[in-house]
Amino acid sequence: MKQSHLFTKTKKEVPKDEASKNAQLLIKAGFIYKEMAGVYAYLPLGLRVLEKIKQIVREEMDAIGGQEFIMTAIQRKELWEKTDRWSDDNVDVWFKSALKNGTEIGFGWSHEEPITDLMKQYLTSYRDLPTYVYQFQTKLRNELRAKSGIMRGREFIMKDMYSYSLNAEQHQTFYDAVIEAYLKVFARVGLGDDTYVTFATGGAFTQFSHEFQTITDAGEDVIYVNREKHIAINEEVLSDTVLKELGVTKDELEKVKTAEVGNIFNFGTVKCEQLGLSIVGAEGQSVPVHLGSYGIGITRLMGVIVEHFSDEKGIIWPNEVAPFQVHLVSLCKESEDVAKADALYKQLQTAGVEVLYDDRDARPGEKFADSDLIGIPLRIVISPRSLENNQVEFKYRQSGEETHIFYTDVLTAIQ
Amino acid sequence: MKQSHLFTKTKKEVPKDEASKNAQLLIKAGFIYKEMAGVYAYLPLGLRVLEKIKQIVREEMDAIGGQEFIMTAIQRKELWEKTDRWSDDNVDVWFKSALKNGTEIGFGWSHEEPITDLMKQYLTSYRDLPTYVYQFQTKLRNELRAKSGIMRGREFIMKDMYSYSLNAEQHQTFYDAVIEAYLKVFARVGLGDDTYVTFATGGAFTQFSHEFQTITDAGEDVIYVNREKHIAINEEVLSDTVLKELGVTKDELEKVKTAEVGNIFNFGTVKCEQLGLSIVGAEGQSVPVHLGSYGIGITRLMGVIVEHFSDEKGIIWPNEVAPFQVHLVSLCKESEDVAKADALYKQLQTAGVEVLYDDRDARPGEKFADSDLIGIPLRIVISPRSLENNQVEFKYRQSGEETHIFYTDVLTAIQ
Repeated sequence: MKQSHLFTKTKKEVPKDEASKNAQLLIKAGFIYKEMAGVYAYLPLGLRVLEKIKQIVREEMDAIGGQEFIMTAIQRKELWEKTDRWSDDNVDVWFKSALKNGTEIGFGWSHEEPITDLMKQYLTSYRDLPTYVYQFQTKLRNELRAKSGIMRGREFIMKDMYSYSLNAEQHQTFYDAVIEAYLKVFARVGLGDDTYVTFATGGAFTQFSHEFQTITDAGEDVIYVNREKHIAINEEVLSDTVLKELGVTKDELEKVKTAEVGNIFNFGTVKCEQLGLSIVGAEGQSVPVHLGSYGIGITRLMGVIVEHFSDEKGIIWPNEVAPFQVHLVSLCKESEDVAKADALYKQLQTAGVEVLYDDRDARPGEKFADSDLIGIPLRIVISPRSLENNQVEFKYRQSGEETHIFYTDVLTAIQ
Repeated sequence: MKQSHLFTKTKKEVPKDEASKNAQLLIKAGFIYKEMAGVYAYLPLGLRVLEKIKQIVREEMDAIGGQEFIMTAIQRKELWEKTDRWSDDNVDVWFKSALKNGTEIGFGWSHEEPITDLMKQYLTSYRDLPTYVYQFQTKLRNELRAKSGIMRGREFIMKDMYSYSLNAEQHQTFYDAVIEAYLKVFARVGLGDDTYVTFATGGAFTQFSHEFQTITDAGEDVIYVNREKHIAINEEVLSDTVLKELGVTKDELEKVKTAEVGNIFNFGTVKCEQLGLSIVGAEGQSVPVHLGSYGIGITRLMGVIVEHFSDEKGIIWPNEVAPFQVHLVSLCKESEDVAKADALYKQLQTAGVEVLYDDRDARPGEKFADSDLIGIPLRIVISPRSLENNQVEFKYRQSGEETHIFYTDVLTAIQ
């Protein structure tokens, strides 16, 4: 994409009420736009990052047998009454409205209820289990405060997955597979080293539940980690018994601030029983269904990545989620040089390299500052001076490393 | 995808209140699920079709310079008050709710206002124009009646594009380009022959506006067409003057029922003036901006395609939007034959062919009926009998044409 064509521009100012680092950087660099607190639009650069993250998650969910579909934002009151989650006393994040005929509706802040109700039409026999479905859904949550940028929104994108299993064992097998798949996701987006499967309180069905927590100062949670053993524990379950079980002592743990980037949850058979989903077992008997739910906040994850990978100059995108692989910055003015820059852009595009081409008529300093702010992993500078030696300059955003590469060797040097 | 893995099944029954052919077929075949009137979830097969349609639209919008981004569902009251479109008296499809602090919000039924307000941050100079942006957005509209299946929803996906131009001429150039791009879209989804650019009343800024109307009995509109000259006119502009201008007589026109599949609209400079978007011209003067908006209802288009391409047995997907290219139906039982069916499935997948593989343990009659209902363009039947001659059977859903192909020639025969 030519930068002269991109309608967004980098900005020096952000809205006064924008306190979070992730939103400040993303607004300045032109990735997002603030509609109101906790409500952000995703501009062309931002949408590219979102789609990259979604595709990584999609691949890992497909790999463990997930089937993608998409539910609705509009929800039926009667379903949520069955599980006692309609009342604002029990769920305090509902946005509600009404149809013309007065029928109350809610806007989806979660989807266990409607998906389980849908499944009553398709899951009837033990042969239909296990079944795993997931969606990328825009969730609407009426949060009292929304001040963590895109890390906690009133409108945000979530990948939510649901497993329907025949028994506790079948449930557990998939639950364990999801833990592995989630760790792959977090590794691929660059957060592997600082993301922990964290032991938390288990609720009614299991000794522990699990959260995925990433170390970041912007986080709202506090956990105890042992970096060497890659073990993490929530404060609420930190007891001598648990420490012994995990083979660590209190002294070996470090207290850190974290953001929850994923959660997995076991509903046992309660939710399906409340909603009337049961199947016919091998002996013709009625069998309750085990439900698990597994979430990754896609926009939240993007926010955590920005909190995690940035410096005083701007964002430093990890390779797999960067909006482009290469930022080709041209300082050329003379038509002969401009032709060489244009030709390199075309060559990279033809080779399937994702390139943002800064072909703007702007000062070098402005171009470099914008490039640092936007944070594409590899910057290639082509200038009259570099072309004197038939060269271009490679500069890596993360390491700051600079090398000179012959114009004709660029493709080889990238791949 | 293996059909044994697909959680949806074909159904004989549809909800009692479902009167429309498109939703009846799509529900029976397992593409959609009705949450309530006008509110449908898209199941794995349905989501595949939606994404195919979106990709076609995306390619054609990109080709004319469109930049994709995504706005928000939650909308600010004050913006819509500026253009007098907040009041329920003026816009009767709002879903509204409120934040915890009492601030009223609306859910996006359209997006001219917030996008134009956003553009005030980025479009400042005549050099920034023209700019074209588009999104695929879930629109929420509180329709009094919603009984046309996915053709008119309370929640539906729309591609909406907006053009910001320096003057009427620049606006017109893009407006004409959109007409061509839309015609390409409708041709690619298979509706080209029966879709007409229709002359309608022009409003304040132009003599005519344009609609894109597809002939279908399920349509809510009536237009007059001349199929030979591919001319169409709305009843409201049908006058002797217009007929003369278009070079047709009333006798040469046929009255047909149609569904609007696209619309394009010229707002002139009014909307940008109301919202305070102006730019600095070449001579330093303040210049008003011309706004155009261009919509295609993605889910509506899917509904029209189903209305248009179906028979008593089920859906007949056009190639470019079919959920899969090939429906591989195996009637094999013996392990040697099953191995051959499995191998063919893998071979097709490896070659990049999108295949739904009916590997279920079911009767041939059931498999064929399901295959007809689902409507994938090419069915390949592999059976013990066909394998006796080292062959499989090709059957085309649209033409009904059947041929026998040697097992080893399948790939060649497809490509």
